[in-house]
Amino acid sequence: MNERFTKGFETIKHYVTTEEAVKMIEADALADIAPDLRKMIIEFAYGDIYSRPGLDAKKRALVVITSVVTQGAAPQTKTHIKRGLHAGLTQTEIVEALLQLVPYIGFPLVQNALTIAQQVFKEEA
Amino acid sequence: MNERFTKGFETIKHYVTTEEAVKMIEADALADIAPDLRKMIIEFAYGDIYSRPGLDAKKRALVVITSVVTQGAAPQTKTHIKRGLHAGLTQTEIVEALLQLVPYIGFPLVQNALTIAQQVFKEEA
Amino acid sequence: MNERFTKGFETIKHYVTTEEAVKMIEADALADIAPDLRKMIIEFAYGDIYSRPGLDAKKRALVVITSVVTQGAAPQTKTHIKRGLHAGLTQTEIVEALLQLVPYIGFPLVQNALTIAQQVFKEEA
Amino acid sequence: MNERFTKGFETIKHYVTTEEAVKMIEADALADIAPDLRKMIIEFAYGDIYSRPGLDAKKRALVVITSVVTQGAAPQTKTHIKRGLHAGLTQTEIVEALLQLVPYIGFPLVQNALTIAQQVFKEEA
Amino acid sequence: MNERFTKGFETIKHYVTTEEAVKMIEADALADIAPDLRKMIIEFAYGDIYSRPGLDAKKRALVVITSVVTQGAAPQTKTHIKRGLHAGLTQTEIVEALLQLVPYIGFPLVQNALTIAQQVFKEEA
Amino acid sequence: MNERFTKGFETIKHYVTTEEAVKMIEADALADIAPDLRKMIIEFAYGDIYSRPGLDAKKRALVVITSVVTQGAAPQTKTHIKRGLHAGLTQTEIVEALLQLVPYIGFPLVQNALTIAQQVFKEEA
Repeated sequence: MNERFTKGFETIKHYVTTEEAVKMIEADALADIAPDLRKMIIEFAYGDIYSRPGLDAKKRALVVITSVVTQGAAPQTKTHIKRGLHAGLTQTEIVEALLQLVPYIGFPLVQNALTIAQQVFKEEA
Repeated sequence: MNERFTKGFETIKHYVTTEEAVKMIEADALADIAPDLRKMIIEFAYGDIYSRPGLDAKKRALVVITSVVTQGAAPQTKTHIKRGLHAGLTQTEIVEALLQLVPYIGFPLVQNALTIAQQVFKEEA
Repeated sequence: MNERFTKGFETIKHYVTTEEAVKMIEADALADIAPDLRKMIIEFAYGDIYSRPGLDAKKRALVVITSVVTQGAAPQTKTHIKRGLHAGLTQTEIVEALLQLVPYIGFPLVQNALTIAQQVFKEEA
Repeated sequence: MNERFTKGFETIKHYVTTEEAVKMIEADALADIAPDLRKMIIEFAYGDIYSRPGLDAKKRALVVITSVVTQGAAPQTKTHIKRGLHAGLTQTEIVEALLQLVPYIGFPLVQNALTIAQQVFKEEA
Repeated sequence: MNERFTKGFETIKHYVTTEEAVKMIEADALADIAPDLRKMIIEFAYGDIYSRPGLDAKKRALVVITSVVTQGAAPQTKTHIKRGLHAGLTQTEIVEALLQLVPYIGFPLVQNALTIAQQVFKEEA
Repeated sequence: MNERFTKGFETIKHYVTTEEAVKMIEADALADIAPDLRKMIIEFAYGDIYSRPGLDAKKRALVVITSVVTQGAAPQTKTHIKRGLHAGLTQTEIVEALLQLVPYIGFPLVQNALTIAQQVFKEEA
């Protein structure tokens, strides 16, 4: 386990529980065909990028939620709304960020994202 | 001038100078073919959406910058990086938000957006 | 209920049955987390935009179907094909509009949309 | 010159002047590297698709304009607004179709398209 | 059955079994509403394009997989990974092509595509 | 200079001349606002991804060209067509890959990409 991996693993705990972080590594669903992908995500996405100074975890989560909603990526929207709540974003902040997107991406994508947010809020309640 | 327009006009001043806000209304470039568009932007985008409570102006600007960069919309990227600086985002926060997007939208779109940010930072210096 | 809402509510009846229009308002699925969204859709989308003169309801429905198909938005494709039929578009016009998109967005998105259209035509028969 | 080409060439004249149609074929800018592309566009896009019955030329033009605007494709937006005017769409119908897209794709893409429309209307006046 | 159809039908057999090719034509799921679509796909996509010289079937399959993954089109990703294996791409080549996309489209779309690839590899084993 | 950087720097020379590789590092246009980006591209994109075994440089270049063309990213299309030629793709292979995309992304994006390819072929001649 190199330094970048350790740093990534520490950083990811701002966005998921320690239990989930361990599970992400131990139960890698793609281990049989792409065993390096999980490592790249921990080392590069979390170790090199998320761990940078200059923007706090809540704002990083807000940026990521906005990007995946704009792309219309439903599974990632669910994942990153959960991580945003764990990083400290309130439900109101998430809902307001989604409504703020209406003039830029239109009603349909925002409606889809709010439906996902509603489901996450229920599951996490 | 109805209540929504007034509210929108007050709100837009968090993102542009008063002079620019006045110019947006008085020198509407599309007035000849779509005279209602400017009114809709002020009343709906700024009056109804940007003015909502629950998320501060800096975070709203961050959300909008992220969305237009994810869409690859160059002219809007320039406009909203400028408005983000006016709303109080630091240059570092903007750069970090763009780098945070690398794992989600790839290097090329982020590189394009950083080139635009660099130009805005020079113009505003 | 303000004037824009009333206008939007009247306009939406060109695209859905009165019963469905009432249900959209009374049974708002997102009322708990985003109670203002439904109001915005009625007032802004239907009251301000759909109700404008200069383009008839059938052509507006054609424009909306084309846009959501081009975006690859499956749930909206279903909704707006239904509304297009209600606005008076024939099944042939809808199928031809989808085939017209092949040279611009490729076969896969068109094939997906035709599969959805086929299902709507069966449900509405 | 086969039947599909002839049919395509006849059909394209609903969207451009005869002079422009001839020029498209005789002055093919990509003839040196992709000499078959122009033929494919005439035979497949215009001969097989645009020439189909069941939707008139104006509605086909409306569908194409909507699709390229939704994709954010600036050069195609210019080309197809010109062809739409030639097919008989009025300036008002084009402007209204663009405004109709605001709730589905947001203000920025619509604003860009209206700026292009404004330029075409001036050139064609 | 014209020459383009015959050529397309021969070409498609590089990507699917003869049995599947026959089934694509005989059991056209969209025959009731768009009977010409299947013919267009065989004649135009396979007869005019896939059958061109200058690029072998494996490389054409690689190009198509890359394009549908970049578009985020899940059903097409499944179809074309299957066809790529049939055309002779190895599982390793497909996995490596998907990982090669990480710096250009980000982790989420690649992860989704790898999950689909994993399922296809199991089904084809 | 760590091992990943060295590996990335060696790998990038399959796609650009040594002179261009050196210039990419020494004349980093974004060094003032995002000094880490260039390093990430060399280490992650080229050191971790492009350098993987299992897919040769020509096929990796083909995958990247296809992805950026599908995204409609004009500046990247130019860059990666150049790199593809340097990696050993022929002009014919590049043109055929672009034509192969017509049934998946439509004529307009392919036409734009062919125009860029034509320009690169002239510059490199």
